[in-house]
Amino acid sequence: MEFDFKKISVIGLGLIGTSILHAINASKNTKIITYAYDINSKHRDIVSEMGIVTFVCDDIHKAVQDADLVILAIPVGTMKSVASLISPSLKKNAVITDTGSTKSSVINDINPYIPKNVNFIPSHPLAGTEYSGPEAGFSTLFQNRYWLIISNKETEQTKKLAKFFENLGSIVEIVSAKYHDKILAITSHLPHLIAYTIVGTASDLEADLKNDVIKFSASGFRDFTRLASSDPIMWRDIFLNNSDAVLEMLQRFNEDLSDLQKAIRKNQGEKLHAFFSRTRSIRKKIIDAGQI
Amino acid sequence: MEFDFKKISVIGLGLIGTSILHAINASKNTKIITYAYDINSKHRDIVSEMGIVTFVCDDIHKAVQDADLVILAIPVGTMKSVASLISPSLKKNAVITDTGSTKSSVINDINPYIPKNVNFIPSHPLAGTEYSGPEAGFSTLFQNRYWLIISNKETEQTKKLAKFFENLGSIVEIVSAKYHDKILAITSHLPHLIAYTIVGTASDLEADLKNDVIKFSASGFRDFTRLASSDPIMWRDIFLNNSDAVLEMLQRFNEDLSDLQKAIRKNQGEKLHAFFSRTRSIRKKIIDAGQI
Repeated sequence: MEFDFKKISVIGLGLIGTSILHAINASKNTKIITYAYDINSKHRDIVSEMGIVTFVCDDIHKAVQDADLVILAIPVGTMKSVASLISPSLKKNAVITDTGSTKSSVINDINPYIPKNVNFIPSHPLAGTEYSGPEAGFSTLFQNRYWLIISNKETEQTKKLAKFFENLGSIVEIVSAKYHDKILAITSHLPHLIAYTIVGTASDLEADLKNDVIKFSASGFRDFTRLASSDPIMWRDIFLNNSDAVLEMLQRFNEDLSDLQKAIRKNQGEKLHAFFSRTRSIRKKIIDAGQI
Repeated sequence: MEFDFKKISVIGLGLIGTSILHAINASKNTKIITYAYDINSKHRDIVSEMGIVTFVCDDIHKAVQDADLVILAIPVGTMKSVASLISPSLKKNAVITDTGSTKSSVINDINPYIPKNVNFIPSHPLAGTEYSGPEAGFSTLFQNRYWLIISNKETEQTKKLAKFFENLGSIVEIVSAKYHDKILAITSHLPHLIAYTIVGTASDLEADLKNDVIKFSASGFRDFTRLASSDPIMWRDIFLNNSDAVLEMLQRFNEDLSDLQKAIRKNQGEKLHAFFSRTRSIRKKIIDAGQI
């Protein structure tokens, strides 16, 4: 597997960061040098132990200064401070990308700190699990998952980056930041917000209902608990940083939910049946698209 | 495997009904005679072809008249008419149960048609998939899943029925109808209502967002589409027949969602973080309870 970037730095050693390192390591390309850094020294130690990185650095400047490609795999709320910190240490002509789930905010936060001779190309891998931390990563996380690149046009640099993501197993598409944030608000952010809400609602009932919410969770509730066990810091930051799109989608959702609520209250069977019938085909389309 | 009931009738040949027949068949107990009926002749033909039933009957009366145990595995909206129809044909001392997801309504609907010498014991297997129809059934559907029996006390008849459900692989608990309806409202009915809603909301956006909701569904949305592809008639009937408990849970959910909405709008990171942190432990408890 041919990599255009030879020196790759990963900042942030959580699920995404370590999965990138695992995937590079699994490619067995001996020409690649990797650098890794996390603000948490325990995470650095864990990744050192794994033996999947050339250099685990205790100093963030050392982790980025020689890199052709710097990947910020950190919560979106920390992008600004990290970008400002590493800005003076970035190598001339380096490409810097991030893996954050909100793009307009990240671009606003990072852009002011990008030196003129450095290329910032935001991106977002649509891959993850409910687990977090350095031990959660694995080399096949990105297999057959979309990795979105944010750009107004295809350039030599976006092509190089796309090839790198494809080498990790991803399917790459280029979209605008605004479009990304809207799509993710409905496909990811709102589903997580709702899952957190219902698990919270049920959790408040636990005292009344003994432990039976947990015991009888297999009847539907269980599916929500997976999403609602995702990293709380990451998700706090996402909602604070994509609030416009999330609130817009939430309003649409609330209108639809009110409609169904009214239909239940008014005993309108036909309306309920019609609504429940049209959602069925969406599942089939997702299966056909190979995203199950 | 010893069965106390020797002649068992299953009315309704969907996912649950055929799974019961598959599981009895898999027990290889040659002393059991099974009878099966569905109002849809195509479903009867499909089950006849499968060779898992002693007698597939074209007449519902013939399907129940010799049975020691009659199981109504039909949508809860049809319980009343089916109970009234079979009432005169039920055998003396027979046990009749149902598998409906709402219990107070089903008891109200069926009780008036139960002859004095017949025992009606409502029940509900907390098992299912998003698939429906006779081809969806399989013998291990009930393995390690709870099957709730509705009764105020344990009797000889509830013990016999419990043993039968245990033979199908289930764990049996006895609860009251009211408690059942409340628990199911939060663990099953509300999650399904919300899943139907969000898939509907996203579906309305499809035109705007091309097919990208489907393409990028793996980021969270996908989990909701499974629930939202369940049988529309079954779910229409559930919401019409457990409306009080569902509307109560929905009100609690709406209050919690409004809180989170306000926190996002007001940029209250700490509040979001605290909420997202407490839901995480619920997932672990479900894993520990063996219900994943």
